[in-house]
Amino acid sequence: MTIRYPNGKVYRQPSHSKSTPSKFANVNFGDRGMSLEEELNDSNTYYLENDIAVIHKKPTPIQIVKVDYPSRSAAVIREAYFKHASTTDYNGVYRGRYLDFEAKETKSKTAFPLKNFHDHQIEHMRQCLKQDGICFVIIRFATLGRLFLLKATDLFTYWDHQVDGGRKSIPLPDIEQLAAELKYHINPLIPYLEAVDNLIDG
Amino acid sequence: MTIRYPNGKVYRQPSHSKSTPSKFANVNFGDRGMSLEEELNDSNTYYLENDIAVIHKKPTPIQIVKVDYPSRSAAVIREAYFKHASTTDYNGVYRGRYLDFEAKETKSKTAFPLKNFHDHQIEHMRQCLKQDGICFVIIRFATLGRLFLLKATDLFTYWDHQVDGGRKSIPLPDIEQLAAELKYHINPLIPYLEAVDNLIDG
Repeated sequence: MTIRYPNGKVYRQPSHSKSTPSKFANVNFGDRGMSLEEELNDSNTYYLENDIAVIHKKPTPIQIVKVDYPSRSAAVIREAYFKHASTTDYNGVYRGRYLDFEAKETKSKTAFPLKNFHDHQIEHMRQCLKQDGICFVIIRFATLGRLFLLKATDLFTYWDHQVDGGRKSIPLPDIEQLAAELKYHINPLIPYLEAVDNLIDG
Repeated sequence: MTIRYPNGKVYRQPSHSKSTPSKFANVNFGDRGMSLEEELNDSNTYYLENDIAVIHKKPTPIQIVKVDYPSRSAAVIREAYFKHASTTDYNGVYRGRYLDFEAKETKSKTAFPLKNFHDHQIEHMRQCLKQDGICFVIIRFATLGRLFLLKATDLFTYWDHQVDGGRKSIPLPDIEQLAAELKYHINPLIPYLEAVDNLIDG
């Protein structure tokens, strides 16, 4: 059972604190009903609180049409619509470098469907790469419980091939070969910056 | 009179296109009813389209409470509230560096009130500086039509002094001495990356 704070954040067992003994190191913490977004937010909070990196998920863009201003109360948005984001969901700074990434999951067991990404996200990552940003995607095979960090340039290869009539997904064996597999840990839950270190230094 | 596109974006005269003759170089384009946010978004669009930098304003964070899903129509948000942002409004990548800033304006002619900034924004900039990000504020004296880029560390000096009981604003003469004054231009409207170059190289 997932226990939540009143603000909706998932309650984490005290065993996940900094003093967690290493005997928990091999436990799979990835299957507790958290979405990939929640897991990444949780990991980013750990990185932030420990002065390792400053990475935030961007708010969902909303087109606001009507707002009520009740007296003595907070303004209430009464009509608004979801907009398409013009960027990826996550960005921030780590080791002086600009990081930019998108996170997506699939139920497929054999390949990652490219339809999870959108033109404007691909375009945004191309623009960031031109400015020497570090761009990647974190993809999860939810059914398999496997998680990978794939460089944006490798994603582009399959994306561009698809646009030219190629296959509409990236086969798992290709991902196993190209991407860095991320293993769930304790703090942080998803230690993806270890794979980013290899992108920066490699 | 400000003319707007249906999407709310301010219409710009064709004279502001890339082929604008240089005789316009000394015209003040800063007093056409655009907000500082609109002027910066416009400048960021120029930087983006010319492969100079990728800087976006983050969407306003919203707490969504109720969403209707009318059949055959887009989802409509029927109850939502504005949330406090946990970061500054702008970030992105330029010359391989992470940029992070806030933009604020005042009607005061003599000093910039510190109440324009919030604890969490100051804290966020401190965190980004620890990761070697480039952090600053762009402040406009609306009545004077003057615009400055002030390093975050200089802002912190006044912020921390205020917390210790010091004055609650930064005097204009101090800003003139510490900050880089930005002159309105054509493309981009606010050429703030020239001042950022000095932060990076200086």
